[in-house]
Amino acid sequence: MLIVKKFGGSSVADKERIFHVAARCIEDYKAGHDVIVVLSAMGKTTDGLLAQAADINPNASKRELDMLLATGEQICVSLMAMAMSSLGVPAISLNAFQVQMHTTSAYGNSRLLRIDSERIRHELESHKIVIVTGFQGVNKREDYTTLGRGGSDTTAVALAAALHADACEIYTDVEGVYTADPRVVPDAKKLSEITYDEMLEFSSLGAKVLHNRSVEMAKRYGVQLVVRSSLSREEGTIVKENAQMEGMLVSGVAADKNTARISVIGVRNEPGIAFKIFRCLSNKNISVDIILQSIGREGTKDISFTVARTDLKEALAALEAGRDSFTAQEITHEENVAKVSIVGAGMESNSGIAAKMFEALYNANINIKMIGTAEIRITVLIDEADVVRAMRAVHDAFDLSE
Amino acid sequence: MLIVKKFGGSSVADKERIFHVAARCIEDYKAGHDVIVVLSAMGKTTDGLLAQAADINPNASKRELDMLLATGEQICVSLMAMAMSSLGVPAISLNAFQVQMHTTSAYGNSRLLRIDSERIRHELESHKIVIVTGFQGVNKREDYTTLGRGGSDTTAVALAAALHADACEIYTDVEGVYTADPRVVPDAKKLSEITYDEMLEFSSLGAKVLHNRSVEMAKRYGVQLVVRSSLSREEGTIVKENAQMEGMLVSGVAADKNTARISVIGVRNEPGIAFKIFRCLSNKNISVDIILQSIGREGTKDISFTVARTDLKEALAALEAGRDSFTAQEITHEENVAKVSIVGAGMESNSGIAAKMFEALYNANINIKMIGTAEIRITVLIDEADVVRAMRAVHDAFDLSE
Repeated sequence: MLIVKKFGGSSVADKERIFHVAARCIEDYKAGHDVIVVLSAMGKTTDGLLAQAADINPNASKRELDMLLATGEQICVSLMAMAMSSLGVPAISLNAFQVQMHTTSAYGNSRLLRIDSERIRHELESHKIVIVTGFQGVNKREDYTTLGRGGSDTTAVALAAALHADACEIYTDVEGVYTADPRVVPDAKKLSEITYDEMLEFSSLGAKVLHNRSVEMAKRYGVQLVVRSSLSREEGTIVKENAQMEGMLVSGVAADKNTARISVIGVRNEPGIAFKIFRCLSNKNISVDIILQSIGREGTKDISFTVARTDLKEALAALEAGRDSFTAQEITHEENVAKVSIVGAGMESNSGIAAKMFEALYNANINIKMIGTAEIRITVLIDEADVVRAMRAVHDAFDLSE
Repeated sequence: MLIVKKFGGSSVADKERIFHVAARCIEDYKAGHDVIVVLSAMGKTTDGLLAQAADINPNASKRELDMLLATGEQICVSLMAMAMSSLGVPAISLNAFQVQMHTTSAYGNSRLLRIDSERIRHELESHKIVIVTGFQGVNKREDYTTLGRGGSDTTAVALAAALHADACEIYTDVEGVYTADPRVVPDAKKLSEITYDEMLEFSSLGAKVLHNRSVEMAKRYGVQLVVRSSLSREEGTIVKENAQMEGMLVSGVAADKNTARISVIGVRNEPGIAFKIFRCLSNKNISVDIILQSIGREGTKDISFTVARTDLKEALAALEAGRDSFTAQEITHEENVAKVSIVGAGMESNSGIAAKMFEALYNANINIKMIGTAEIRITVLIDEADVVRAMRAVHDAFDLSE
């Protein structure tokens, strides 16, 4: 069997953890498997390098930042190879140039295009554990690129796809994907399986278990993922196309506090107004989530939407600048709000799920400010102060507890 | 003009020094020159990485060590590019993969074979300062190699040769090559010019101004070098084929305390004995310097030689192991010795130079233990305690002072 195992920065933060990961990979190797290990930079290395760069040039080019950051993973993979060979197992580290990890041209947030797997196959055939730098790639100019934060997950999936691996295991500091954040909902249950689409919804909702692109890529190439803890022996959660949801309509509840509401009030009721408003934001690369349009006073209309709270200031400035073009009477905003969502592949074929969620919130006396729905997700915007009660109420209503 | 400028680790040890070097390179750029900058890793980075490796695996493979060490220069070149662009000058950093710095296969102490200068030319044509990682290369397996300590000098010379640079400047923390170490001989004089061969003798004598291989390569390809200080505006020393020695017979005096004497006493006076002794040492990669053979008692002979003091223990063990094969009666050694040498291209055509050196030492009441000569060098082995007096006496005898 060919197994790809990916470990994040905190799993390899120091010597002890490096040896812990090494031992874990060696188990599979000794059981007769081919093993590819994908690693991020150790602990806070990447942040440290970024701080060093910012000290020298706060506006450093992304090209040079990628050149700098790529060293973080290279240090980690070479130390891991040393650790494994000190444990008596042949291992070799490879960087993005050596595995020809081709990406798009963009620096800082590149996308993988293809991998030349020849070198890796050669090393596997000589019975080595192959340790590959995550996060980094090489573009057609022969420059380093990076895949954005969390990009090592994508590296792992891409390698699993390119080499037709039998398993792709993503190790994190949680034991898998839960029906809700266990710190908020103590009786949340670990899911044994989940579909790609559900995982994507969870990822975009701020449950930062997997990098979104890695799930998209896994779905596209049919790579079955396992999310599990590097600290325990628990089974973890399998992410695949047709997950068995054990009759569950909803697979989990997620909250996202990085949100804020903006309302553009009293715009003229004529074509093109929404376009003009959202163009202001897309020009600044600001993403908009739930959108709600209502009839206002005197033939005008109001348009409300949510943005990431971290984008609020820039969004307000952009709207203020374009205000004349869409004839707004007023622009208001609200910061202390949060999104609570339910996600479930079973939703598509079942009616009444939204009603059940709203009923649970009503019973808990929680006011819903906005509602947004997607194919397998329902999201409500509520007061931030109500988040914990809302999550528990909804979690209970759908019988998600253990 | 195309200028290659090389700065060592101490010249780029922190932010301030990086900006100092950046400003210095930008001067040449603004004067209309094409500029290639070769950098070592910052300050003690390489030592730090080696310590990290040793902590994980004291017997780490050289292949993985090179993979690890290569990150040191990459960090430095990317930060330098950021510093230059913050000063408003376009700059780009390139590593050994990007400049296709091909070397022999050996890890840890590789030799440069050829450079693909296309990428560099392209970047120079787009009016960028090109900053290249020193010390590292890539072998035919597409693995990182390193050129051994001080290898960045060689990188600079190789680039100057491959790109037909008009100047190759090696920046160090001294102002050039002196007639003697100014800390030992206070009135030592800076040489304005020196030949490649003299420089090679000085390098091998422990005057660590230039990496030996870089001088050999400069000689082979006729690259004129300038050794100068990164801290001052002084002219420095030019290293070239036909240096003007201003009528000097001797260009300098050097001392080397990393030496020890070994005597193999009472070996049979028959063919093959010397071969057997030195084979023991060459098998362990131990280099031997001055060799002296004398007739011992009862038809036996004694063979004495010097080795680096750091190799003494291993040399004695190797000789002890092979002792039977060369029938030695006794093996003695002496640690507190040092070599003092005079170097000068003018020596070849002038007799009486050795006599003058010995006379100076005699007048200073210094005992000579062994004598070794080469084409442009005369070396004596003396008590370590006599080194300072010996150097000053010889320096005076040849009128080398300012």
